[in-house]
Amino acid sequence: MEYNYKISINYDGGRYEGWQRQKGRLTIQETLEDCIGNICGEKIKVIASGRTDAGVHALEQTANFHAKVKLKKEQFLRECNEKLPEDIRIMTMETVDAKFHSRYDAVEKTYCYTIDLRERPNVFTRRYAYSVREELNVQEMERAAELLTGIHDFRSFTSEKRKEKDTVRNLKSIVMVNTNQYLKLYFRGDGFLYHMVRILAGTLIEIGLGKKIVEEIPEIFQAKNRFRAGFMAPAHGLMLVEVIYETKE
Amino acid sequence: MEYNYKISINYDGGRYEGWQRQKGRLTIQETLEDCIGNICGEKIKVIASGRTDAGVHALEQTANFHAKVKLKKEQFLRECNEKLPEDIRIMTMETVDAKFHSRYDAVEKTYCYTIDLRERPNVFTRRYAYSVREELNVQEMERAAELLTGIHDFRSFTSEKRKEKDTVRNLKSIVMVNTNQYLKLYFRGDGFLYHMVRILAGTLIEIGLGKKIVEEIPEIFQAKNRFRAGFMAPAHGLMLVEVIYETKE
Repeated sequence: MEYNYKISINYDGGRYEGWQRQKGRLTIQETLEDCIGNICGEKIKVIASGRTDAGVHALEQTANFHAKVKLKKEQFLRECNEKLPEDIRIMTMETVDAKFHSRYDAVEKTYCYTIDLRERPNVFTRRYAYSVREELNVQEMERAAELLTGIHDFRSFTSEKRKEKDTVRNLKSIVMVNTNQYLKLYFRGDGFLYHMVRILAGTLIEIGLGKKIVEEIPEIFQAKNRFRAGFMAPAHGLMLVEVIYETKE
Repeated sequence: MEYNYKISINYDGGRYEGWQRQKGRLTIQETLEDCIGNICGEKIKVIASGRTDAGVHALEQTANFHAKVKLKKEQFLRECNEKLPEDIRIMTMETVDAKFHSRYDAVEKTYCYTIDLRERPNVFTRRYAYSVREELNVQEMERAAELLTGIHDFRSFTSEKRKEKDTVRNLKSIVMVNTNQYLKLYFRGDGFLYHMVRILAGTLIEIGLGKKIVEEIPEIFQAKNRFRAGFMAPAHGLMLVEVIYETKE
């Protein structure tokens, strides 16, 4: 008998070499596996909805793990959060169906890319917002966002090397929230390729700066070539906001 | 001929041993003096409205410095902010009367102490909010705040050792803003003694936790003894918000 536990995790990725366990490097996965394994008294493998890059944050990452031990929710959360470093918090835990898989079963994800628009960026958000000191033409960015949205082959927008891999994704929406101090770009989609959100953010920023024009977007898609798209915006501006699962009745 | 320049500064105090220059330690004052001195081509002394403690932040600290060179505002701000580490920003600069002194001429200051009320504190604000995981009785804290407000001898609320020093201050208001996730305590007064805001915050927290009762406050004032007041709340929750100067007509 084994239990399957689903958890949601809040982390500041600044200190970490990303989600995925790598020998000799500080990762979110290893930190969580060590902590949960210690509490469960067995070796634990934590599967996330997706592997965030080095430096990327999560407001709500979803993961699951299997364990032989029956865990009590409140006690588990208290013990974990006492043991974890203060830049990782497990926010919720629940027992789920044995077949639940946090990566395969995710049907939608939302990422937010935050740009600090101020000439003199706020020191208190510098770790979570990318500072662009030149003026951005947000209207042009909105036009570009419309063209980027939808079902497309996003091969030009990924650093993924494997040629045979399916690179078609449904980018359901790009919503921009402009407070004059910050410009937040919310990307909602059924899934994202390696580096895709950061390359989309970089491409939108280049359009906002006038380094690229909206009319290039169809060509960028057609080229299926990473070098046609914009730069990869820095990791610290990116936050995984939400992961959605199908509710099975 | 010498010019007197007034600047406002935004800093994250987390890395620094406070405002005041100390041999062999990283301080805000020395960092600013080195940077501005470099730009002016002369030795510069930067006087702040007050010396924030190690780890305390400033949304808007005010300071002034004298220099022989005539500085151009935009160029000065750009050069400073390029040279300064990213946790210190000079936000504004203006030429002021030769007699202006940022410490002696300050007539009012506002500090904010931020408490994270969540059982699992937000990782993204952990450097700027003190996490209190037990429930706080905010109503009792409000009652206590009323008794603390006004013109009092705050000797019990300072770590200041000098006995002869004048410890009477006018604490004009304590405003509490409770968002359920955070409780922010705004302290507005004509001046604050060494550690005073953090001891006031700690005393209010102890009242909120039921470790002290509101009725003790008159005794605490009368005792004129640091040990009667509450604990000193940690530095990272404290932020200097604003410094007000008399507008001379």
